[in-house]
Amino acid sequence: MKNKFLGLWRRELVRRGGMMEIDGSQIMSESVFEASGHLAGFTDPIVKCTGCGATFRADRLISESAGIEVPEASDTAEFDRAISDNGVKCSGCGGALGGTERFNMIFKVGIGPGGEPAYLRPETCQSIFVDFPRIFKTMRGRLPLGIAQVGKSFRNEISPRQSLLRLREFYQAEIEVFCNPGKLDEADLAEVAGAVLRVDQGGKTVETGCAEAVESGIIPNRFVAYHLGLLAEFYEKTGIDMGKSRFRRLGEKEKAFYAEAAFDFEVETTVGWLELVACNYRSDYDLSAHAKKSGEKFEVMDGEEKVLPHVFEMSMGIDRSLYTILEHSLREDAENERTVLSVRPYLAPVHVGVLSLVKKGGLREKTDEIHGAIRRDYDAFLDHSGAIGRRYRRLDEIGAPLAITIDHRTLEDGTVTVRRRDTMEQDRIKIDEINGLLSTELAYP
Amino acid sequence: MKNKFLGLWRRELVRRGGMMEIDGSQIMSESVFEASGHLAGFTDPIVKCTGCGATFRADRLISESAGIEVPEASDTAEFDRAISDNGVKCSGCGGALGGTERFNMIFKVGIGPGGEPAYLRPETCQSIFVDFPRIFKTMRGRLPLGIAQVGKSFRNEISPRQSLLRLREFYQAEIEVFCNPGKLDEADLAEVAGAVLRVDQGGKTVETGCAEAVESGIIPNRFVAYHLGLLAEFYEKTGIDMGKSRFRRLGEKEKAFYAEAAFDFEVETTVGWLELVACNYRSDYDLSAHAKKSGEKFEVMDGEEKVLPHVFEMSMGIDRSLYTILEHSLREDAENERTVLSVRPYLAPVHVGVLSLVKKGGLREKTDEIHGAIRRDYDAFLDHSGAIGRRYRRLDEIGAPLAITIDHRTLEDGTVTVRRRDTMEQDRIKIDEINGLLSTELAYP
Repeated sequence: MKNKFLGLWRRELVRRGGMMEIDGSQIMSESVFEASGHLAGFTDPIVKCTGCGATFRADRLISESAGIEVPEASDTAEFDRAISDNGVKCSGCGGALGGTERFNMIFKVGIGPGGEPAYLRPETCQSIFVDFPRIFKTMRGRLPLGIAQVGKSFRNEISPRQSLLRLREFYQAEIEVFCNPGKLDEADLAEVAGAVLRVDQGGKTVETGCAEAVESGIIPNRFVAYHLGLLAEFYEKTGIDMGKSRFRRLGEKEKAFYAEAAFDFEVETTVGWLELVACNYRSDYDLSAHAKKSGEKFEVMDGEEKVLPHVFEMSMGIDRSLYTILEHSLREDAENERTVLSVRPYLAPVHVGVLSLVKKGGLREKTDEIHGAIRRDYDAFLDHSGAIGRRYRRLDEIGAPLAITIDHRTLEDGTVTVRRRDTMEQDRIKIDEINGLLSTELAYP
Repeated sequence: MKNKFLGLWRRELVRRGGMMEIDGSQIMSESVFEASGHLAGFTDPIVKCTGCGATFRADRLISESAGIEVPEASDTAEFDRAISDNGVKCSGCGGALGGTERFNMIFKVGIGPGGEPAYLRPETCQSIFVDFPRIFKTMRGRLPLGIAQVGKSFRNEISPRQSLLRLREFYQAEIEVFCNPGKLDEADLAEVAGAVLRVDQGGKTVETGCAEAVESGIIPNRFVAYHLGLLAEFYEKTGIDMGKSRFRRLGEKEKAFYAEAAFDFEVETTVGWLELVACNYRSDYDLSAHAKKSGEKFEVMDGEEKVLPHVFEMSMGIDRSLYTILEHSLREDAENERTVLSVRPYLAPVHVGVLSLVKKGGLREKTDEIHGAIRRDYDAFLDHSGAIGRRYRRLDEIGAPLAITIDHRTLEDGTVTVRRRDTMEQDRIKIDEINGLLSTELAYP
């Protein structure tokens, strides 16, 4: 399902937006993270229990014990004050807490026998920034140039939790678009004319088109509007309930220090509003920092003009996106006594079940033959045993949009039964029509 | 190209072989690598210069300086003896070398604020072994059960070298097939009846079919023969010159300590014979070790019989495979004064170039429109500038199998020119035939 989600992401964002994709290192040298600011600033506030030695994230412990929100980025003194003012204790043994410290979430590794310091990347984008001049040159790039990367990032979280939502190693699909800051209003919005942006305006979500959003000042410029439009159209196709989604512009205190303007794409789930994508206009913060640290030139030519590009970023959490798709797709069908994962066919973990009505009389062999003919192209699940109704229910639960059943009539007239997950309708088609049916029904939109 | 290679791997090995795919952690806990033996035995022999402090791999330095091969797995005393007997010195400053030590290639990281020891996996397979009982149960598995995984592995190499061939972080595509050791000769070879195995027999490569290879004793059983057959048919489709390939059975001293029988799939390149895939019959070495360490049960039911499965592994180096495909595909076409990357169309980094003959007279717009219509489905490179011949040459170099050119006639009769990389032939087709042409020519075989 992850591979299929990324296939859709490549279609609807990378290829559609005319971007390139790279695959960089996960271990990067110390100088990269000195330049990016992660070595200095990428920390969580932590407190330790003086009794049992358990460690907590200070902001979470205070919030859970005293119901007070102390922002993550506050000084350690503010956490200490909130802890003493509210009598916050260890939630394990009830012991007294020590002073708040800053814990860096970046994982350190030593390279070679000398143990030269290096780090597991906490976000995939730094290798895009570091490699930008070379990619621009060798790939005959032109501004605006989008560079994408999918891969793992690593954060030494104090308390990983909620299954796929907070992990120490997680997948990101990041896109960094490099642009001429003087041409932000030259983007052509015709391509995303059909996109609907749902934007949070003071707690209320308004629906708007891309061009309209720029005119009314909700989105700062056409360049940002174009990319939010692409993103909205992509998520529409994942099957997430877009009625439960919003772009939320972050306030001055919420957004990252490098961001001039930031929109979070958020979706409502049973665990609350989840941030799936951070869209940051990072200005020239990153390229300037890496240029300064490395002494390399990061300016490029845009026509006759020499520019240090600005960067617009769409940083997507893949695990969280999959979690949300699964949650929004799952439904109880009480009338038919079944649980159905109504995931879009092109994202389904299993595309099609191939079932024999009974194993005897040559049906097993025929079923194996039909399965063998399609299994290279589709994720086909072969199942010979159990009551057919129960096998259909099981396929519904794992989201297989189609089931093909081979019965005695198959041997007589070369037809099979096709059952559809969502409607439970059954038709008979010829064996030589199976490939055409699958290719139509399971194609990306 | 990596994504396309993996697409082919999924078709020809994972789906065709009826396997499952997982995606496990890259950081794993200490107990996993205590059980696997990596903490004790996964080392390189190193020596340091007492003068300049440079570090070398002892076996390589001895081989380069004195032309003597001391096997990597020898005692440190044997390296010390070879160094003193042959007067081997530091290749940098000529200084005296210190004693040989064993350097563990596994990267260590600390988890959480306490820095609990954990390691970056040196091979992807350990998470397959550890997860096996759960996967078997939840996925309603049956023996034989193949479990596949693609991802990065990490080795702290003393001297990474030769570009993609020896990296500190590299991609593996590993398949572990769990089987009942009593049923190794029940595998059905009909599926791979067409496969040709090229097997090294005392320095000479013989060609044989799978069934024939088992009968003549070249391959120990039908189970191993089936999988080597799948592997050979997969590589045939990557475009590697199979005439330069061989399966080489490793001798007792060469193979890993856990392997009962081991075949390396090797391909001849300009840097010598390269090992692309290690095929190891690992017996119950891994499952026994993890069962012992964890106290969990790793036996499963095979019909009425309770068995601790044996494992056959196909551990593929992706970076090395891509290197070999590139090298075997590149050719100089002196007659036509061009360099051609004749990579298989379905693996090509760029599928199709979309070119305007000139930019004027509406041709740019028409070209953009045609490019826009195909770019989600194919890797299409849009190019408006420069002489058309030079643009074709550039597409030949990067291996684009097709080019579509839009000229003045396009606006008159709705046809475009299609040029083929390998033959340089040109045809005219209608615009509405483009999609059908691309889908036929670029499909996986």
